[in-house]
Amino acid sequence: MEVSSVFSVLNAVGLFVFSISGALTAIRKRLDFLSVLIIAFFTGVGGGTIRDVMLGTFPVWWINDETAVGICILGAVVACFAHRFLWSRQKALIWADAAGLSVFAILGAQSALAVGAPAIVAVFMGGVTATFGGIIRDVLLNQPSLILKQEIYATAALGGASLYVGLVELGVSIDIAAITASLLTFAIRGSAILFGYSLPKLGGDIAQNP
Amino acid sequence: MEVSSVFSVLNAVGLFVFSISGALTAIRKRLDFLSVLIIAFFTGVGGGTIRDVMLGTFPVWWINDETAVGICILGAVVACFAHRFLWSRQKALIWADAAGLSVFAILGAQSALAVGAPAIVAVFMGGVTATFGGIIRDVLLNQPSLILKQEIYATAALGGASLYVGLVELGVSIDIAAITASLLTFAIRGSAILFGYSLPKLGGDIAQNP
Amino acid sequence: MEVSSVFSVLNAVGLFVFSISGALTAIRKRLDFLSVLIIAFFTGVGGGTIRDVMLGTFPVWWINDETAVGICILGAVVACFAHRFLWSRQKALIWADAAGLSVFAILGAQSALAVGAPAIVAVFMGGVTATFGGIIRDVLLNQPSLILKQEIYATAALGGASLYVGLVELGVSIDIAAITASLLTFAIRGSAILFGYSLPKLGGDIAQNP
Repeated sequence: MEVSSVFSVLNAVGLFVFSISGALTAIRKRLDFLSVLIIAFFTGVGGGTIRDVMLGTFPVWWINDETAVGICILGAVVACFAHRFLWSRQKALIWADAAGLSVFAILGAQSALAVGAPAIVAVFMGGVTATFGGIIRDVLLNQPSLILKQEIYATAALGGASLYVGLVELGVSIDIAAITASLLTFAIRGSAILFGYSLPKLGGDIAQNP
Repeated sequence: MEVSSVFSVLNAVGLFVFSISGALTAIRKRLDFLSVLIIAFFTGVGGGTIRDVMLGTFPVWWINDETAVGICILGAVVACFAHRFLWSRQKALIWADAAGLSVFAILGAQSALAVGAPAIVAVFMGGVTATFGGIIRDVLLNQPSLILKQEIYATAALGGASLYVGLVELGVSIDIAAITASLLTFAIRGSAILFGYSLPKLGGDIAQNP
Repeated sequence: MEVSSVFSVLNAVGLFVFSISGALTAIRKRLDFLSVLIIAFFTGVGGGTIRDVMLGTFPVWWINDETAVGICILGAVVACFAHRFLWSRQKALIWADAAGLSVFAILGAQSALAVGAPAIVAVFMGGVTATFGGIIRDVLLNQPSLILKQEIYATAALGGASLYVGLVELGVSIDIAAITASLLTFAIRGSAILFGYSLPKLGGDIAQNP
C-alpha cells in the first residue's frame, strides 16, 4: 500500500471524526438536522478551507471532491442516529481525532510548501489546517474554543509540522518525512491524552481581575 | 419583464432586508452608527461573499457592485432612523427576509453550477449563500446563531436549492428552474412562518447535562 | 527617508502592537503559549487578510512575508514574558494601536483602489483592514467585540480612508494623500482617546428589553 493511499485513508478518518465532533456539539445545542449538517461539514472541511483561502488555492479543496462532502454528511448522519452511543465512546473519538489531527497538520504544511511559502509559514499552516475546523465549530456555536483550551493540541500540530518542514528542507523524501512527522504529532497528542500533559498557562496571576 | 430582472429586484430586496436585520441587531447591542453599518453590510453581502471565496470567484461579488454596497448602506441608515418603527413591523420583515432567502439560495446554487461544482456541492452552496449573512451577523455580535436555531430556515434554502439543481440536471431551462425553486423555498419558509413547523431537534435527552 | 519606508515602519509598529493586543487578551483567557501565538498572529495579520481575500489578492499578504510573521511571533513572545508590565502601560499601547490603525486604514484603501474597486468600496476596505484584526481576536476568544464598542475606532479608520480616497481622486499624489489621511485618522482616534468622544449610540430606549 502506498504512502499516499495510507494518507488518503487517514485523511478520510480525520474528516469523518471531525464532522462527528461538529455534529455532536451541534446536537448538544439542540439544533435541527440540517443545521447539525452545516456545522458538521464546516468542522470537517474548515481547517483545509482556511488553508486554501490563505494560500490562494481555488476553488477550495472540497468543491470538486464529492467523497469528502459525502464523508462529512455521513458523519452528521451517524452522529444524529448514534449520538448517545458516541458520547459513551468519547475515548475512541479522542484517539480518532488525534489521528485526524496528525494527518491534517502534515497535509497543511505540505500544501504551503507546494506553493512556495517559507518554512515558518508552512509550519503555521500545519497548525491552522489541523485546528481551525474545531475553531470554526466553536465560533459558529458561540462557545469558547475548546481547541485553544485543550492541552497540547495546537502544540502537537505545530510540532509535527515543524518536523515535517525540517525533514523536507534536509532533503528527506516527502513520504518518509510525512510518515515520521505525523507519527510525531500523534505521539505528542497521544502522550497528552494519556498523561494529561499541558503547556504552562500564562496570566494566572491576572485572571482574578479580568 | 425578464426573469433575470425579476431576480435582480428580489436580490436587491433580500440585500436590503438582510442589512436591516443586521443593523437592527447591532442597534440592540448599542453599537454606534459606523459599527452598525459594518454589521449591516456583512449581514447583507456575507452569504454571497463566503460562496465566492469557497468557489474562487474573485474579487468577491460586491467589490465592483456599487449598487449592492449602496443598498446595504441604505438599509443601515433606514434602520438607524426607523428602528422603533421597524421593530413594530417584525412580521413584514420576516416575510421580506423569506423572499431574500429564496433568491439567495437559488443564486448560490447557480454560481456553484456555473463553475462546474458537483450537484451536492451546489445544493450546499445554496444553503450557505442564504444563511451565512445571518450567521456572520451573529458571530460578529457574539450571540448564539438565530439562523441555525430558527425553524425551517436552512432547510428551506437547501430544499429550494435541491429542486433547482435537480431541474437543471433534468434539462429544464435555467429561468424556469430558478422561478420554480425559489417559489418552493418561499413556500417552505412561508409555511414554517405561518404554521410554526420545525424539524425534530436531536439530543433532547442529553441537554440536561451539557 | 521616503514615504514608503516611513509607512513600512509604521506598518510594522501596527502589526507588533496588534499582535501584542491579541496575545494579552489570550493570556487573560488563560490559553497556553501556542494558542496565544495563534491568536496574536491573526489579530496582527487578520485585517489585511480579510481585505486580500475580499479583493482576490492571493496568496494573502503575509504568506511570503517572513518579516511580518516574525513580528507577530515577536509580539506574542514579548507579551508572554512581559504581560504584567504591558498591562501597566495600557496608555502607551493604546497610542501605538492608534498609529497602527492609521496606517492599516490607508493601506486598506490603497489596496482596494489598486485593484480598481470603486471609491466607496475602497473606503470600506480601509475600515475593514484596520478593524478586523481586533474583530477576529474577539471572535476567536468568544467575547463581545471591543472594536465595535470602542469610541470612534471604526469611525477614525473610515474617516481617514475617505480623505485618502478623496485626495487621490482629486489628483493629489499618493504619498501626500497617504500621509495626510493617516494623520487625520490618528487625530480623530487620538482626540477620542484624549477627550473620550463617541458617536451617539442608537437604540437606547430598546436596550432594556433585549
